[in-house]
Formats: sequence, structure tokens, C-alpha cells
Amino acid sequence: MHAYRTHNCAQLTKDNVGDTVRLSGWVHNKRDHGGVLFVDLRDHYGITQIVADEDSEALPILDRIKLESVVTIDGTVKARDDVAVNKNLPTGEIEVFARSVEVQSRAEDLPLIVNSAEDYPEETRLKYRFVDLRRERVHKNIMLRNQVITSLRRRMTDQGFSEFQTPILGASSPEGARDYLVPSRLHPGRFYALPQAPQMFKQLLMVAGFDRYFQIAPCFRDEDLRADRSPEFYQLDFEMSFVTQEDVFQAIEPVLAGVFEEFADGKSVTPAGEFPRIPYAEAMLKYGSDKPDLRNPLMISDVTSHFEKSGFGLFEKIVGGGGRVRVIPAPNTHEKSRKFFDEMNDWARREGFAGLGYVTRKGGEFGGPIAKNHGPEGMEKLYAELGLGENDGLFFAAGKEKDAAKLAGAARTRVAEELGLIEEGCFKFCWIVDFPMFEYDEDQKKVDFSHNPFSMPQGEMEALETKDPLDILAWQYDIVCNGYELSSGAIRNHRPDIMYKAFEIAGYTQEDVDANFSGMIEAFKLGAPPHGGSAPGIDRIVMLLADEPNIREVIAFPLNQKAQDLMMGAPSVVAPSQLRDVHIRLGGAALEAQKAASETEKTDMNSNATQRDAPERSDDT
Amino acid sequence: MHAYRTHNCAQLTKDNVGDTVRLSGWVHNKRDHGGVLFVDLRDHYGITQIVADEDSEALPILDRIKLESVVTIDGTVKARDDVAVNKNLPTGEIEVFARSVEVQSRAEDLPLIVNSAEDYPEETRLKYRFVDLRRERVHKNIMLRNQVITSLRRRMTDQGFSEFQTPILGASSPEGARDYLVPSRLHPGRFYALPQAPQMFKQLLMVAGFDRYFQIAPCFRDEDLRADRSPEFYQLDFEMSFVTQEDVFQAIEPVLAGVFEEFADGKSVTPAGEFPRIPYAEAMLKYGSDKPDLRNPLMISDVTSHFEKSGFGLFEKIVGGGGRVRVIPAPNTHEKSRKFFDEMNDWARREGFAGLGYVTRKGGEFGGPIAKNHGPEGMEKLYAELGLGENDGLFFAAGKEKDAAKLAGAARTRVAEELGLIEEGCFKFCWIVDFPMFEYDEDQKKVDFSHNPFSMPQGEMEALETKDPLDILAWQYDIVCNGYELSSGAIRNHRPDIMYKAFEIAGYTQEDVDANFSGMIEAFKLGAPPHGGSAPGIDRIVMLLADEPNIREVIAFPLNQKAQDLMMGAPSVVAPSQLRDVHIRLGGAALEAQKAASETEKTDMNSNATQRDAPERSDDT
Repeated sequence: MHAYRTHNCAQLTKDNVGDTVRLSGWVHNKRDHGGVLFVDLRDHYGITQIVADEDSEALPILDRIKLESVVTIDGTVKARDDVAVNKNLPTGEIEVFARSVEVQSRAEDLPLIVNSAEDYPEETRLKYRFVDLRRERVHKNIMLRNQVITSLRRRMTDQGFSEFQTPILGASSPEGARDYLVPSRLHPGRFYALPQAPQMFKQLLMVAGFDRYFQIAPCFRDEDLRADRSPEFYQLDFEMSFVTQEDVFQAIEPVLAGVFEEFADGKSVTPAGEFPRIPYAEAMLKYGSDKPDLRNPLMISDVTSHFEKSGFGLFEKIVGGGGRVRVIPAPNTHEKSRKFFDEMNDWARREGFAGLGYVTRKGGEFGGPIAKNHGPEGMEKLYAELGLGENDGLFFAAGKEKDAAKLAGAARTRVAEELGLIEEGCFKFCWIVDFPMFEYDEDQKKVDFSHNPFSMPQGEMEALETKDPLDILAWQYDIVCNGYELSSGAIRNHRPDIMYKAFEIAGYTQEDVDANFSGMIEAFKLGAPPHGGSAPGIDRIVMLLADEPNIREVIAFPLNQKAQDLMMGAPSVVAPSQLRDVHIRLGGAALEAQKAASETEKTDMNSNATQRDAPERSDDT
Repeated sequence: MHAYRTHNCAQLTKDNVGDTVRLSGWVHNKRDHGGVLFVDLRDHYGITQIVADEDSEALPILDRIKLESVVTIDGTVKARDDVAVNKNLPTGEIEVFARSVEVQSRAEDLPLIVNSAEDYPEETRLKYRFVDLRRERVHKNIMLRNQVITSLRRRMTDQGFSEFQTPILGASSPEGARDYLVPSRLHPGRFYALPQAPQMFKQLLMVAGFDRYFQIAPCFRDEDLRADRSPEFYQLDFEMSFVTQEDVFQAIEPVLAGVFEEFADGKSVTPAGEFPRIPYAEAMLKYGSDKPDLRNPLMISDVTSHFEKSGFGLFEKIVGGGGRVRVIPAPNTHEKSRKFFDEMNDWARREGFAGLGYVTRKGGEFGGPIAKNHGPEGMEKLYAELGLGENDGLFFAAGKEKDAAKLAGAARTRVAEELGLIEEGCFKFCWIVDFPMFEYDEDQKKVDFSHNPFSMPQGEMEALETKDPLDILAWQYDIVCNGYELSSGAIRNHRPDIMYKAFEIAGYTQEDVDANFSGMIEAFKLGAPPHGGSAPGIDRIVMLLADEPNIREVIAFPLNQKAQDLMMGAPSVVAPSQLRDVHIRLGGAALEAQKAASETEKTDMNSNATQRDAPERSDDT
């Protein structure tokens, strides 16, 4: 018989009744029914009920042992009494009568209870993550993450992509987010940087002639943290050669739709091949956002023309000044009080907007100052055009175009949430396409790139040479799911001549480009294929599928919101010799911290940091 | 028709003759046959021959364009004349008559020739890696790497393992190899370290109740580099709960044998389930090494007893002093000159040994001083015992046991190489098992751990309490292929009481253990399963399969032997503000380097470093 188990804790069924078995696992729960002890034995796979009575030598041991101890049970499978059958458990029809027990690991008192859904402070959970990870929700999340990533890999491979590892010890980039630096020992005064994304490397892989690259790529950004940000995160990074934007969409829609369908747990998913493509301008108009949540049925309309000569002076003034009036319907709000509408206005002000106007309607009768001033005839006309009914309210966002769009977008979400209109049980994908290549920078009074200078302009050189720059669109796209941007992407500009021209329009000379982007430009001068790609965020995908609001719920060992590993004590003070080895000294605040630490060493939460395990010879290598 | 291609460059066959096609790729080669131009068009998948004559508008363009330019060809598939058929090429029966060509990317002069096998300095190859990677050998190696890793993942998943990502921003460990450090911005004076291996995390995953973990894990060691070492390397890290050593072997043998069989290209592979298990003591005796190359048929024997009273004074003295005499046969060396044997002796001296004795034999007649002194009768007896024949020579390694074993091991390899006895065309695996738990440290005059203090001793607590420490073996094992250690591994000691006892034997108190290894010990006190694992090196596996002697040949973008990325300019000088952000200053040699750099900036090979590409907005995120 195997030293530890003949079955795992999810395997035994009625078919095994009478079998002699050996099980190992954690003591998940105990119930003492006066001389008869029931133990829920848990392992990775499930739970099996163990029973011991006074005939069993296991009884006194199991009776005294603490929860979460690890034991091996030798026993016999018995059918449960009908009343005791648990249909929710795969092993719910049987129990194992324990003949004997071997204690593999005796648990001491626990910092958090594994068999309850009780909430603990994140500090406790992360410090004892190895216990927290035993709890059902987070155990399930981490397994979901594994399965999602395995599925993504399989789907990418099926689409003809190959996975490549790109370097983690890379070069620091002068722009972008803040890099994590790694001082070099062999090159005093020089530093590696951890990659913010393998952008350069994936493009160079295309220049190197590999046709379809992907990577479940670790990325690093030393930014201030939020619920959906981790210093270390993963993206499904991919790039393809000899492709148009449409090819990229056709390659990745089956991957995303497929993985969402596989793990959506009954929720509907936009089918591959049917992801709507929404031009950026349309998204900004209809949804007030470039990451529209399509589960929200409300649509924004531009009604500026109605208010050119309105009795409502404020709008007239805004429109006269080149501004815009956008509206968000609030269907079936005839029973909502004035307070509902006023609170929306208050919310808008709290968010920093000038205010959110509104019109109420009840049984066809309009209410509120805008309706009063605009007059019933104008209102009827407006409502007819918008296709609104006699019990539908209307919110107004007016101002400069950008401001009006932004407020309308936020209000669209707010109104739908308040009215419970967001469709549940679905994942709605779309592409945002046709981003403008350039925009007019009001501050600098010049044309500048609006998003990504390295995307290929639609129409390529001819467009740059003949069109108004502000009319030129880019082969650039975002993928959005339920209002979350999963990734940007683009067909890249692989042509030095077009690159120089695009930068010239934004006010940069060829020398500027060569000085700042020589690596890429030089590679493109040695034979580069047209190429493009994207990089959907893995953590975000898993968060959506697990319905978790916090990225740390889908990472096995996350840093906390202060970028600390409370369990292992990272970051930690290191030996002075380690700093000398890499030719650095502490500076600024670090010196003060060092001084303070030496004074209060015993109360320092990280003072264990340098005491942790793992001399080299303990590693498998 | 697709903008770039209807087919890739490996797809067209005789079945396509007459088809109108579009192909895109690199101009791999050109041959001008007087008015008819042949172009080998290459992409990731293969090569297709393009032909253009004076009827084609493509001719003048293709004629002038440089190799490695990227072009799109519109043309018609034609069958090649019989004499022109190339059976070695999947597309060798056809060619494409080019009607027109579009230049996608015009290549300038190349730093290295793609269509030749010419060798270039590593500096050139790595600086222009995106061109080097187009060359057949390295392109093939990198694709092999991808395929090996994909296969390993599939095989591990098939064995019930799940892949987990462990943190890359981790804690520095006080012992072991040198860490790469990452200064913290949020915690002045504190540092993260890149993982040397995810050892702690994989064990904590077992404590967390995940049953079978694996990861294609990036690992980092700031060590001085060799041909088979990279600062950044990957291992197939895995760990299992509720297992014995035998379970680990049964889980991983099919994975390793499977992946080797899949990619061995006809070489034989030790079948799964048949990996020999060689106890450490036997390996040291028979092979003089704990990583024996089983392709080598020679076996070392201990012949000490023959020389207790030999006429050969030197050996008598060694044996009298407790030393050992080991022999390595040199079969069928009757035609080898005296020089052959003497040169072996010279080699041993160059390697720092006292010397390698020998006996020659030709048609039954012994030669050399050992034979002379030991006498023909003694020699006959020895040869009979060893089963050697009348034309076999014999080499002698004598000295203290460790020295004799080491010399015998090195000589075994040398003799087999010189005699061409190493079997080719095979991958021979074995496990080395039963490593001693403790050894006697001659310097410190005390018992110490001999390999890994965290392995479970065989016999557990009882062995520690009752046996001579030097007789206790550990559940520790190495996996070896063709003389290369792919990995260590162990069944871990998951019991604090046994851990304390083991350390006590090595002279450490419970307080010492708690102070140095608190993280692991504390976790083990909250319910830990028996567990074990290993971590075969991925780069090493790919090197073996690709038959490459250098790790950089199997990494897409390796650092060079000075740990530099010559292409991207890493490590690089960074902005002073970046250092201030993370509270460090340059120190020691870095200050001098900084000074020197500011004086000679223009000749600095890395001065481009901060000029490279990739502002944040160019990344897909």
C-alpha cells in the first residue's frame, strides 16, 4: 500500500464500499457526536468524511489533534446512512471508518480559520498566505488562473503561435512608467531594468523572422498601486508578421472568446468573429468612453443642434461657444423622485463636473428647468428624435466636446447602475478602432501624437503627405470587455521613412528620432516585415472570470498594496557587502531609514527578513 | 486577396501549378542567369524560389534590391524543369513566376550574412541578434526550445501538475549564490531580490495544499559566467505532496524520457521506468563521479586489496596509510605506443593529480613499472578478477579515497574519449540516490551536512536518534543525463522536530534554526504535508537536444559572457533621478566609472543605452 494514500479525498464513491483505503490530508473540520467523531479530511481535490468511534485507536488521536494538522488515515469505506448522504459532495455517499491514524504534521494555533468564509485583514491573509491559500475561494481562484493560462497557451499554440521567453534583465527606457532597476556587479554604475513589457523584443522577434510570437509575459512597473494593479503582472503578449488589423482580430477573437466561454460558468460571451468594431470617434460620442461597457443599454446622443436657439440660455451659450450638448436617457423614471435627479447632479459636481442637467417626464409631462425653458414643443421634437417615451427622463451633459463626452460617459454608467440596467451574466467584447494618429495639443499649440507614435498611420506615407494630420487615423486598436480595457494593440510602423515623416508632423527632426529610437529604427533598416499585435492582461482576464475586484485575489503570492511581501519579508535590508558588490550606497531617505531602523530594530516588522530560509544547497538546481 | 500573402513560403507544391499567388518574405538569395533572375524568398516556414525575366516588371526591382529586404511577390506557380527540381525543399518542385513586386522593407548593408553558415564573433551576432536569429541554425534552436517547453508543459499537465507563477520580486536570501538586487522606491533602504529558484514558494504551495506544482521558472544568479551558465535561466521546477522518492521518479521519468524521445532526432533514450538508480557511494566507486556518463562503457574497480603486500612500494605505502587503489581498463590498447600511456600520466599531472599509473599488455605480456614490481602472477590474478583480456591496458589512480575516486573518474572519461569508446547517438539517464545526510568536516573536525540540510533523512527521527550520523542517508537524488546533472531534488524534511534534531547533529541549536530558517519552520508548524520535487534545467535540456555546447545558442536574446545585452545596451547608465527615486547612490567603482565615462562618453560602447525605444505609450498594455 502506498505510504500516504490509495485515493485522494475526492475519489471514493459507493463503488468503494468495503474497500480498505488510505487517505492523507488536512483536518478540515471535526464534529464530536458523543463518542463518535466525524472529521472532514481535506486535500487539494476534495473532502472525505472520516468517522472514528471508541473501537478505533484513531479516536483519541483525532480527538486531540488541532484543525489543519496533516494526517494519514487507514480505514474502511462505509456507505453513509441515507439521512447523512451529502449530495453536494462527490464523496457524499460514503465515509471512511478510521482504523488507525498517523500524524504527518501537527498544526499549532492558526492565524486564520480555513474552514470558514470569515474575512480577515489583508495583512493577516498575506503574511500567512500559505494558510489563506487553503481557503476555498482563493484556492479556487488560483486554480482558475492556472487553467485560464493553460487554456490560453493551448489556444495560442493552436492558432500557430510559438511561445518565446524574452529577457527579464533588460535595459531601462528613458520614457514610460517607472522601471525597477537592478544594479550591475560586473559593470559598475550601470543598471538593468525589469521589462515593463516585452514590446521591443517582440517586434525584434518579428524582424528576426519568427512569424507568430506569444508569451505569458511577466511585466513590471514601479507605479503607485491600486486594486487592479500589481508591481508584477502578466500579459498575453503576442505579435504577428505580414498581417493587417483584421488578421490580428481574427487570430485573437477565438482565443479570448474561447477562454471566456470555457470558464464563464454559464455567462454568455460575445462569439468569436462577432466582436463589434467601434470607431474611436463613435465610442466617444455614443458611450462617452473609449472603453464602453456594452452590457449597459443606454446610448448617448448629441443634441447640440436642438439647443442652438433654445430658451435655455446656458445651453445656448455653450453651443454658441462651440460646445456640445449630449444626453443620456433614463428610461421609465416617472416614479423616481426629484431627489433621484438632484442627486445625480450632485454626484456630477462631486466628480468635478459643472453639473448634470435633467428633464423628467411622467405620463408625457415634462419637468425641470431645461424642459421649462426649452418649451414643450422643442422637448417633444427632441424626444421624438431620440425615440424616447412618455415616462423616460433625460440627463444633459454640456460643455466643451471633451468635457461633455467625459461627463456623458460617466453619467451613462451611473444612470444605468442606479436604474439596475447593466445586463448581468454576460461578457461583452468589442474592439475600439480608428484612433486618431494626431491631436492638437492646446497647451503647446501644436500637433502631437495622440496615442502611440509607433503605430502605422492608415494610408501610410500617402496619408501623411496629403491629409490634414488631424484627419489621419492609426491602425491602432483596444480590446474592451465589460468596460475594462484588456489591452491596446497596433499594426506597427515598420518603415523608417514613414516613421520620420510621422515624427516630422509632430515637430521632430530625423535627428530627434535617430537619437531617441535608434534601436528600433536601425533594426527596421535591415529588413522588417509588416507586423502587429496586442497584449491582453492575464490578471485582468482572471479577475473578470473569477468576478473578483482585486488583483491580489487571483495571484498566489501577491505583494500587498505597499509592494511588500509580508510572508517572506521583501523588500528587506540587505548586507552591506551586497551593496558593495554592486557598487551602490544608500542615499536620501534610505540613510534616514537605516538610522531609524538601527534604533528600533526590535519593533521592525521586517526584521526577520534576512533570516529566511534557502541557502543555495537547499534549492533544486 | 490578402494584403501580404495567400501562402507562406513552405506551402506551394505541384498541386498549385497555375495558381495566382502572393508571397511575402525576405530576399534570402539571388542568382542572375543572364536576363533571368532567381530569388530565394524566405519566411519563418521555408523558402520558395521566385523567378523573374525581362517580361516581368519585378525584374529591375528585384535585381537592384539588397539581400534581406522584405518583399511581397505577386505571381503564378510554375512547375520546375525536371533538372531544376530540388527534392530537399518542400517547395522544390515549383517556382513562382513574379509578375510584380512590392517592397515592404528595404535592407541596408548587413553586419552578417544570413544565407551562410559562416561564423561571426559573438559580439556581432548578439549586437545584431535580430539578424543572427534569421540564420538557419539558431532559428532552428530557438524553435526547438519553444517546442521542448510546450511539450514539457503538456506532459506535466498530463501528469496532473498545475502551473503556478511565483514572485519574481522576492526577498534576498543570506546564503546561496549572489542575488540580483532591486532597490525599493516605497521602502527606502530595502531591496527585493530576483529568485535564484522558487524553492521556498514551491514548498509553501505544498503547505498551502496544492498537490502538484510545476513552473517553467525564470531563475537568476549573479555569478561569473561560463559557457553553460546564463545570469537568467529557466528550470522545470516541480513539487508534489504526499509522495515518496519513488513517486517523484515515476512522475518525472515519463516527462523527461518523453520529451527527449520526441526531439532526440533518432537518438536512443533511456525509456521511462528504466532509469537506473545508482547509489551515491556506488557512483563514486564505479564512475568516480556523482554525475556519471553512462555512454562510457568503462567501469572503475577498487583493487586496494591486491596492493596491501605488493612489490610496488608506492601503492603499498598508500594502502598502508588507509588509501585506495582504483583502476580504469583501457581495452585493446596493445597497439598503443608507450607515448599514449605516458601522455595520460602527463595529463593527470596537469590536472593537479600526483600521476596516473599504468600497466600495458600486448598478447598477454605485461609492461610498465607497476607490472614489473607487482609481478606477473599478481597481475594475472588482478586481470582475472577484473575480467580483462590479453590486449587490455590498465590505468591506476591511487591516493586518499576522495582523491583516488576523483582521479579515476576523470581518467575514465579521458581514456574513453581517447579510445573513442563513448557511445554516440543516445541519451542515457540515471538517478543518483542515497546521498549521505552528513559528512565529517576535516577542517572543522565536526559532523556537518553533506549536501542539503532540508532533505528528509532516510529513517527519519529514528535514524537520527539511533544511527551513526555518517551512516545516515538522505532522500535526495540527482538526475543525470550523459554525464550532465540536470537537477538535484529531494523529499523535503517537513517536520520541525526532525529538522531541529538534524541540525543538532550538525552542531546547531534550535535557536540557530529558528533564527535562520524561521519562515519555513513557522509554515511547517501550521500543517505541512510530506512533499518533494526537483527542477531540471530547461536550457541544459535544450542544449543536449540541440547538441550545442553554449547556452547562448538556445536563448533568443541572451546576455553575453560579460552579462551585457549589446543590442539593447543593458546594463546602462540611468538618469540620476532614477537613482534618487529608489534612494540609492553610486558607490566605489561605480563612481570612478561614472567619472571616466563623463570624460570619454563618445567612445563608450553603451552610450546609446538610454536612447533606445519604447516610451510607455508604445507598449501594448
